[in-house]
Amino acid sequence: MDIDVLLILDILGTVAFAISGVLAAMDKKLDLFGVIIIAFVTAIGGGTLRDFLIGDLPVAWIRDISYTAIIILTVVITIPFNRDIVNLRKTLFLFDSLGIGFFTIVGVQKGIMTGLHPGICVVLGTVSACFGGVIRDILLNNIPIIFRKEIYASACIAGGSLYLVSSSFLSLPVSEVLSISVVVLIRIGAVRYKWQLPNIYRK
Amino acid sequence: MDIDVLLILDILGTVAFAISGVLAAMDKKLDLFGVIIIAFVTAIGGGTLRDFLIGDLPVAWIRDISYTAIIILTVVITIPFNRDIVNLRKTLFLFDSLGIGFFTIVGVQKGIMTGLHPGICVVLGTVSACFGGVIRDILLNNIPIIFRKEIYASACIAGGSLYLVSSSFLSLPVSEVLSISVVVLIRIGAVRYKWQLPNIYRK
Amino acid sequence: MDIDVLLILDILGTVAFAISGVLAAMDKKLDLFGVIIIAFVTAIGGGTLRDFLIGDLPVAWIRDISYTAIIILTVVITIPFNRDIVNLRKTLFLFDSLGIGFFTIVGVQKGIMTGLHPGICVVLGTVSACFGGVIRDILLNNIPIIFRKEIYASACIAGGSLYLVSSSFLSLPVSEVLSISVVVLIRIGAVRYKWQLPNIYRK
Repeated sequence: MDIDVLLILDILGTVAFAISGVLAAMDKKLDLFGVIIIAFVTAIGGGTLRDFLIGDLPVAWIRDISYTAIIILTVVITIPFNRDIVNLRKTLFLFDSLGIGFFTIVGVQKGIMTGLHPGICVVLGTVSACFGGVIRDILLNNIPIIFRKEIYASACIAGGSLYLVSSSFLSLPVSEVLSISVVVLIRIGAVRYKWQLPNIYRK
Repeated sequence: MDIDVLLILDILGTVAFAISGVLAAMDKKLDLFGVIIIAFVTAIGGGTLRDFLIGDLPVAWIRDISYTAIIILTVVITIPFNRDIVNLRKTLFLFDSLGIGFFTIVGVQKGIMTGLHPGICVVLGTVSACFGGVIRDILLNNIPIIFRKEIYASACIAGGSLYLVSSSFLSLPVSEVLSISVVVLIRIGAVRYKWQLPNIYRK
Repeated sequence: MDIDVLLILDILGTVAFAISGVLAAMDKKLDLFGVIIIAFVTAIGGGTLRDFLIGDLPVAWIRDISYTAIIILTVVITIPFNRDIVNLRKTLFLFDSLGIGFFTIVGVQKGIMTGLHPGICVVLGTVSACFGGVIRDILLNNIPIIFRKEIYASACIAGGSLYLVSSSFLSLPVSEVLSISVVVLIRIGAVRYKWQLPNIYRK
C-alpha cells in the first residue's frame, strides 16, 4: 500500500471519528468547547492509550500538530451542518469503518514493531480502534455503546488477526488492504444482516 | 515466600478480579464483548495505572500474554455459571482479599525498586489494588463503590505500611505473608464487625 | 518571577483544587476515603495526564511526596469546615483561578522544554489546568462541568498563547505574571459579565 493511501485512511478515520464525537456531544447540548474536546478525544483516544501502553511517548498527536488541526477544522465545518450530516449516515459509516480498519492495522503493526506476542498485537489493534469511542461515551456519561450492541470489536479482532497471519506471506500493502476490507465488510454485514454476538443470558 | 506462592497469589487475584468484573457486567446486561472488557479492566486496571505512573512501560499485561489468557479463560468459565457463583460469595471474597493483598505488596515493592518515598510506595500499592474496581465502576456508569462504603483501601494502606516497615527487619517472604494476612484480616473484620470509616457528616 | 512565587502559586493551586474536590465529594456524601481520593485526583489529575502525554515519568507527584502531604492536610482541615468554606467562595475562586493560571503556564513551559509545536504547548497547558476537574466530575458520575458552561478552558488558551508569544521578547518572570493575570482576569470577567462561548445551537 502506497504511503499516500495510508495517509488518506488516517485522515479519513480521524475525520470520521471527530464527526461522530461532534454529533454525540451536540446531542447532549454541550457548548462549543465541550464539542471540540469530545471530538478530540474520540479521534485521538485510541491511539493515545495505545502509545501509553507500549511506552511510545510523547504520544502521536503531541508530536504532530496535524491531528489537532484536522480535528478542529472538522469540528468547525461539522457544527453548522450537524443536522444535514445525519443524512450522510451511510457515507459516515463507511468512513468510520475505514478508520476503524486503519487504526486496527496501525495498532497491530506498532505491536509487531515493539516485539509483542501476536495475541497482544491484536488486542492492541482493537484497543486503538475502539477506545476513542469508549472514552467519548464515558465523558458523556453513557455506558459505552460498544459494550451493548456494537459488533465492531469483533471486526477489529478478525481484521487484526488476518493482518498478523497474512502479512507473513503476502506483501504488506496487499495484507493491509485485505485486512482493512475485512473489518469494513464485517461491519457492513453486521448492520445489514443484524449479526450479533451470542446471547449469554438465559431466556 | 517461594516464587510459586507469589505466582499462585497473582493468578488467584487476577481470577477473582476478573470474576467480579463478569458479575458486575452481567448485572448491567452487557453483551459478551462488554463482559470480557469489564473483566479485563477490573483485573489489569490497577497494575496498568501503577506502571503508567512510574513509567514502567510497556505495562505488565502487554509484555506477558498470560494475563490476557487467564482472564479470557475465567470469563468463559464464569459466564455459564454466573448464578451459581453468587453462592460462592465467601470463597470469592477470600480470593478477592488475597488478590488485593497481593497487588498491594507488589505495588509497594515496585515503588521501593523505583526508589520512591515510602509514603508514595504505600499510595502506589493502594492504587494498584483498588483502581481496577474503580475503573470497572466508571465504565458501568456507577459511582465507584470504594468511595461509598468499602473499607478495603484502608486495608491496603495498613498492609502496605506494614510491609514497608517489616521488610526492613524481617525476611521478605515472612514480611509478605504477614502483610497480605493483615489486608485479608482487616477486610474480613470489616465485613463481620461492620467496621466503618469515621462519619464526616453532621448528623 | 522568583522561584518562591512559583512555589506559592503551585501550593495555592493545589490547595484550591483539593478543596474543590472535597466540596464536590461531600456533596455526593462520599466517605472519608472517597473524599481524599476525589481531592487528590482533582489536584493532581491534570499534571498527571500532562506527564503521561509527554512521557515525563514517573509523574510529578510520584517523585515528590509534598503534593500528597499538602492534599491530605487540605482535606483534613477542609472537612470540618466544609459548610463555612462555602462562604469563602470568592477567595476560593481567586485561588482556583491562580491555580489554573499557574498550571497552564507550567504545562506550556514543559511543552516548550520538550520541543513541541507551539499549538501543542497551548493544548498541553490547557489539559494540565482543566483535566483534574474533568476527572473529578467523571468519578462523581457527572458530565464534566467544563463541557457545559465554564469558560475557563478559553482563559487557559488565551493565557497559554500569551505566554508563548510574550516569553520570546519579555523576561520570563514578567511573561509569567502577565499570562497568569490574563487567565485570572478572563475568569473573573466571565463570571461578572456572564461571558459565554458563542451558542452553536439553532434557536
